[in-house]
Amino acid sequence: MFYRITALFLCLASALAVMADPQELSVSSPNGLVTVHFSLQQPAGAPTYRVTYRGQEVVRPSHLGLELAGDKGRTDFYNFDFDRHSDRSSLYNGFTLTAVTRDTVDYTWQPVWGEESDIRCHYREMAVTLQQPEWDRYIVVRFRVEDTGVGFRYEFPAQQNLNHFVIREERTEFAMPGDLTAWWIAGDYDTQEYEYTCSRLSQIRELLPGRIAPNASQTVFSPTGVQTSLLLRTDDGVYLNLHEAALVDYSCMSLNVNDTTWVLTSWLTPDAQGNKGHLQTPCTSPWRTITVTDDARLLLASRLILNLNEPCRIDDTSWIHPVKYMGVWWELITGMHTWNYTDQYPSVKLGVTDFEHATPNGRHGANNDNVRRYIDFAAKHGFQQLLVEGWDQGWEDWVGNTKDYVFDFVTPYPDFDLPALNEYAHSRGIKLMMHHETSSSARNYERHLEQAYQLMNRYGYDAVKSGYVGDILPRGEHHYGQWMVNHYQYCIEQAARHHIMVNAHEAVRPTGLCRTWPNLIGNESARGTEYQSFGGTQPGHTAILPFTRLQGGPMDYTPGIMVMDLGSFAPGNTSRCLSTICGQLALYVTMYSPLQMAADLPEHYERYMDAFQFIKDVPVDWSRSVYLEAEPMQWVTIARKDKNSDRWFIGSVTGMQPHTSRIKLDFLDPGRHYEATVYTDAPDADYRTAPDRYKIRYMRQVNARTVLNLTSQAGGGFAVSIRPTD
Amino acid sequence: MFYRITALFLCLASALAVMADPQELSVSSPNGLVTVHFSLQQPAGAPTYRVTYRGQEVVRPSHLGLELAGDKGRTDFYNFDFDRHSDRSSLYNGFTLTAVTRDTVDYTWQPVWGEESDIRCHYREMAVTLQQPEWDRYIVVRFRVEDTGVGFRYEFPAQQNLNHFVIREERTEFAMPGDLTAWWIAGDYDTQEYEYTCSRLSQIRELLPGRIAPNASQTVFSPTGVQTSLLLRTDDGVYLNLHEAALVDYSCMSLNVNDTTWVLTSWLTPDAQGNKGHLQTPCTSPWRTITVTDDARLLLASRLILNLNEPCRIDDTSWIHPVKYMGVWWELITGMHTWNYTDQYPSVKLGVTDFEHATPNGRHGANNDNVRRYIDFAAKHGFQQLLVEGWDQGWEDWVGNTKDYVFDFVTPYPDFDLPALNEYAHSRGIKLMMHHETSSSARNYERHLEQAYQLMNRYGYDAVKSGYVGDILPRGEHHYGQWMVNHYQYCIEQAARHHIMVNAHEAVRPTGLCRTWPNLIGNESARGTEYQSFGGTQPGHTAILPFTRLQGGPMDYTPGIMVMDLGSFAPGNTSRCLSTICGQLALYVTMYSPLQMAADLPEHYERYMDAFQFIKDVPVDWSRSVYLEAEPMQWVTIARKDKNSDRWFIGSVTGMQPHTSRIKLDFLDPGRHYEATVYTDAPDADYRTAPDRYKIRYMRQVNARTVLNLTSQAGGGFAVSIRPTD
Repeated sequence: MFYRITALFLCLASALAVMADPQELSVSSPNGLVTVHFSLQQPAGAPTYRVTYRGQEVVRPSHLGLELAGDKGRTDFYNFDFDRHSDRSSLYNGFTLTAVTRDTVDYTWQPVWGEESDIRCHYREMAVTLQQPEWDRYIVVRFRVEDTGVGFRYEFPAQQNLNHFVIREERTEFAMPGDLTAWWIAGDYDTQEYEYTCSRLSQIRELLPGRIAPNASQTVFSPTGVQTSLLLRTDDGVYLNLHEAALVDYSCMSLNVNDTTWVLTSWLTPDAQGNKGHLQTPCTSPWRTITVTDDARLLLASRLILNLNEPCRIDDTSWIHPVKYMGVWWELITGMHTWNYTDQYPSVKLGVTDFEHATPNGRHGANNDNVRRYIDFAAKHGFQQLLVEGWDQGWEDWVGNTKDYVFDFVTPYPDFDLPALNEYAHSRGIKLMMHHETSSSARNYERHLEQAYQLMNRYGYDAVKSGYVGDILPRGEHHYGQWMVNHYQYCIEQAARHHIMVNAHEAVRPTGLCRTWPNLIGNESARGTEYQSFGGTQPGHTAILPFTRLQGGPMDYTPGIMVMDLGSFAPGNTSRCLSTICGQLALYVTMYSPLQMAADLPEHYERYMDAFQFIKDVPVDWSRSVYLEAEPMQWVTIARKDKNSDRWFIGSVTGMQPHTSRIKLDFLDPGRHYEATVYTDAPDADYRTAPDRYKIRYMRQVNARTVLNLTSQAGGGFAVSIRPTD
Repeated sequence: MFYRITALFLCLASALAVMADPQELSVSSPNGLVTVHFSLQQPAGAPTYRVTYRGQEVVRPSHLGLELAGDKGRTDFYNFDFDRHSDRSSLYNGFTLTAVTRDTVDYTWQPVWGEESDIRCHYREMAVTLQQPEWDRYIVVRFRVEDTGVGFRYEFPAQQNLNHFVIREERTEFAMPGDLTAWWIAGDYDTQEYEYTCSRLSQIRELLPGRIAPNASQTVFSPTGVQTSLLLRTDDGVYLNLHEAALVDYSCMSLNVNDTTWVLTSWLTPDAQGNKGHLQTPCTSPWRTITVTDDARLLLASRLILNLNEPCRIDDTSWIHPVKYMGVWWELITGMHTWNYTDQYPSVKLGVTDFEHATPNGRHGANNDNVRRYIDFAAKHGFQQLLVEGWDQGWEDWVGNTKDYVFDFVTPYPDFDLPALNEYAHSRGIKLMMHHETSSSARNYERHLEQAYQLMNRYGYDAVKSGYVGDILPRGEHHYGQWMVNHYQYCIEQAARHHIMVNAHEAVRPTGLCRTWPNLIGNESARGTEYQSFGGTQPGHTAILPFTRLQGGPMDYTPGIMVMDLGSFAPGNTSRCLSTICGQLALYVTMYSPLQMAADLPEHYERYMDAFQFIKDVPVDWSRSVYLEAEPMQWVTIARKDKNSDRWFIGSVTGMQPHTSRIKLDFLDPGRHYEATVYTDAPDADYRTAPDRYKIRYMRQVNARTVLNLTSQAGGGFAVSIRPTD
């Protein structure tokens, strides 16, 4: 829609030179700071690119291309020879340049929800057509350069000699200019639920084994493999962020680090047979993105990845809306209650096991009384929805058994009266949020999807949290392979047909697809708050996620924990939430998401009603965002303006060190008057021992000239809400 | 339904001895001829069985059990040690016998369709409960012995210490009493479309490589692997047939021949990870069946496999009916016309490729005019349905590309007016038969299944021929693995919900499931008539199929070819149908199926209207079948009585030698008068050079005392229709 309107403003380019000789071509960002240079390395005819930022080479000459499945055996990943005489498996050399097209595009689009109400998409583009005379086939490499970075992708036009093909490996290189500092998690085909490590590239090999927390499904693939988005910094202070945009019907990319050359190479997720993708022309790869800036705040402000995605494909988006919700969830995660209804059977079979006459275990969270209690609380405090996990039959043996028919997504346990509870929720002005844990049994989910969505439509659910815990069925497939990428996409599109919003956990990491499919309102795809119950997550995690995981789209991080000593209410739980209360409040601003949960228990919020007020007040959709301070893994401070009012909110989180912020409120409307409520860590707050020491200060009068000096403790943060008074 | 009624007649058994010492237990067939002996081999506690027939040992002591996936590496298939100290992976030793139950069952049931209207199920049963004290778990092995053979299966009751488990390999042995004669095809995880070889077991290793015809998907797994049903004969003339019954949610079994010990061992089809099955208690294996008789005709008369299947699960079966049909098919198979509509594109994408404006190739078979021509012919000659292949978009690149979204099963080509053609067919009193070629893209088929079946319901189709050509998607899975067995079953059950009958080609071989799901009216699962167009099939093939492939259920063999020189109408086709016309007529009787096609072109039938009369007359459902002569691969002669009249039909096919049959019509009602039409090969008929020489003789008066002496030529046969005149 937006695209068609703005197409009018495009400067249409025309095909330029046809060159026989290699020659470096380049295209620069509108502000001139970022330049991509392209050439064909001779004599092999191997396409290469490099990137300069302010004239400095931040990506050294790097190969481009793909290796297709062919007659040869599998080639050596590490000593891959881009110059060897090509056979049919080569889409990485033997090329001649036959056309170059250029374009400049500048338009503004309005996301259905987001960090700002208007997003400018302004880029210069260069597309090179690369012919392989030996095989009479060609590809296009398209570069787009915005002020904050570069995107490029492979395009495979329909043609006589390139139709169906199989990718053995994508061979895209990102040659770093040295032993950069990196913020990384281990490359894994099945999980991203790891804590980040900040180290030199050269240290990854040594550190990686110690950074692999156990997971219900995990496949680490290389001693130096890391995931995207990968944040890097040169010793000169230039940040690079490597990720991808618009991952559709392709395998998710990780990066493998050569720790002697500092070349990072794409490493796609394989299928059950070890291949990396099955494509048919016309098609494209996802965009490979390189955000580049010397101002860390611009990493957060960049819209490069969203802009590289296609415009919205949903015509009527009126049913899509941000959601602030609570859930019958934390009590399950912490072990206080259970998802399953009975402990009577060693395993259960849907349609066979008699749940009606089973002995309840007495600890089932999704029971009518408990859900009504949550509904009452959530409704009273202005939440829109209540998630209920463990409502459907099958939780007794759902995980770790690669069980095919594990849930049917429509049959509740005997103590969960689905129609009545929905009716009750609606009578209180809120909705229930659906939960579809698939146990990664993707075929089973697809078999039941239509009926599951129909049930949601029938009873008034409009959002679903889906989950993919455990190894994938079909067996041998991975969470991040093309098969599953296709599955997640299928669910999003089927949900859109039913006017259902999707929040998929353990699915592939987002790549900005929410622009095209804004009913994808959330993903997990990283280590979320649940790990605070599984041993804790060190401070700094929420100060790195905005630079990494959130680059691709919002995360359902589920913040808002107030009682950090989990054993105090969940017997046997020895974990602590390693955060202060103010650190939790700040997350509603710093971790942008249209879907925000108040994850703790009602009775815990009742203990801290004054702090809880911030969670009640904070909106989940914004017209403007101002990135005030940003230091990866150390602190992030952001101010945002409510999309539906003139209120502003500020959040700041810290890592392992205390941090004092000096905040000028110069983003406020000059001349207007405001009042502010400031939630800060008390000086004696401590994320380990005294997380609930906080101060709430009411400021009767602030304005655009006000400067706030606010101190966060280690693992803490602060939050400010600002309301106009005139 | 039948089950409940007949349960009243069961002799209920009681638990017998609990024995500490090994001791051979046995159970014999009602007629006493077949006996199974069971014992626990000591000291390993390894369950074994053997089978005697008329006191002679036809299956020597053979191990029973399964190897589960465990911590150990994969074990050696050939030198498997049943006596080694068991670990948790052993369900093959370490057992003690804790209970034996016995039962005798005798009842008669009525199939919805079949070779006879009443089927007697009469067996003696012995179930042994085998405990593994070391792991505190147990299994049951249940034996059922009918007069024509033995079925046994593993049962895994629900219990504390055996819930979800993974099969590394089933270790069931069938120890043959020597180097038997076998009629075999190569073991393959993906196809059965091979010609049979008759050889000694010892010759398989040498002969097998030469018997592997190419196929769009094939995975031969062992130099001595063979498929079931496997027909064997001792030098004393005792026949053994090894197969399985009731294959549900389990991996299909092949057999691996140890050609020094003559032990055949079960070899299940692996999944993409190499495992052989994922089970959850309570569950059972399929029945392993050993038909045993010294009269080859009893191999055809045995109902052992049907009887071992569960009673019908469909309450209202009124919509299920046999079908005699024609098809827009042979002209495609022979290359005369095409499935695809256009040759314009090197590949196509559904929803993207513009078929409306594509250039037709002018050879598309499923066009309105051609289909109307077939409808007219089929209706005029009393057929019930017309299959049309190539009606739906996607055939341009459907095979060999492991293409995911290959068909949508609802969108016709521009020249196929689906509503109008159905309306026209209905106006002529027949139905169209749906065709769903899945290209083995099983996920894609399941995604579209509901809409595809709804389309069928909307337009009045009640039967579908489905196809699974090419390698399976999900990739790495096999046609005969548990994943796909589950898929075929899913389709059958979903089809039943929609009152749709299924005829699945390239699906797993049938195992008598049509008793339980009689809407499964056909399967291919063997080398069908199509191969007469791909180089031909030697005579004898149709004289072995009733002893092998047809043991598990009907085959959609698609007989009825009249013009054997395919190049005479399909330019470039150099193949011949290696059969005589009378040989083709006979198949409608010898190859039992409720679904019979007249596969040739209307214009070919018009050339041989007198012979075609038999195809028009022959029914597809029977009240009685009399197996007159049977010699595997040499001849089969069967008389059957129409289920809906007093007419009788006789068919006889021959192999590589001519054969003269002396047929007493003593199955006719004594005292009644009949007339007969006899279709025989002419003396100079020759399946290579003169296939269309036949004689039709009208006999005004035959009765129960009549004896016919009829001669078939090599590759030929005869057919007789008999009508009462009083």
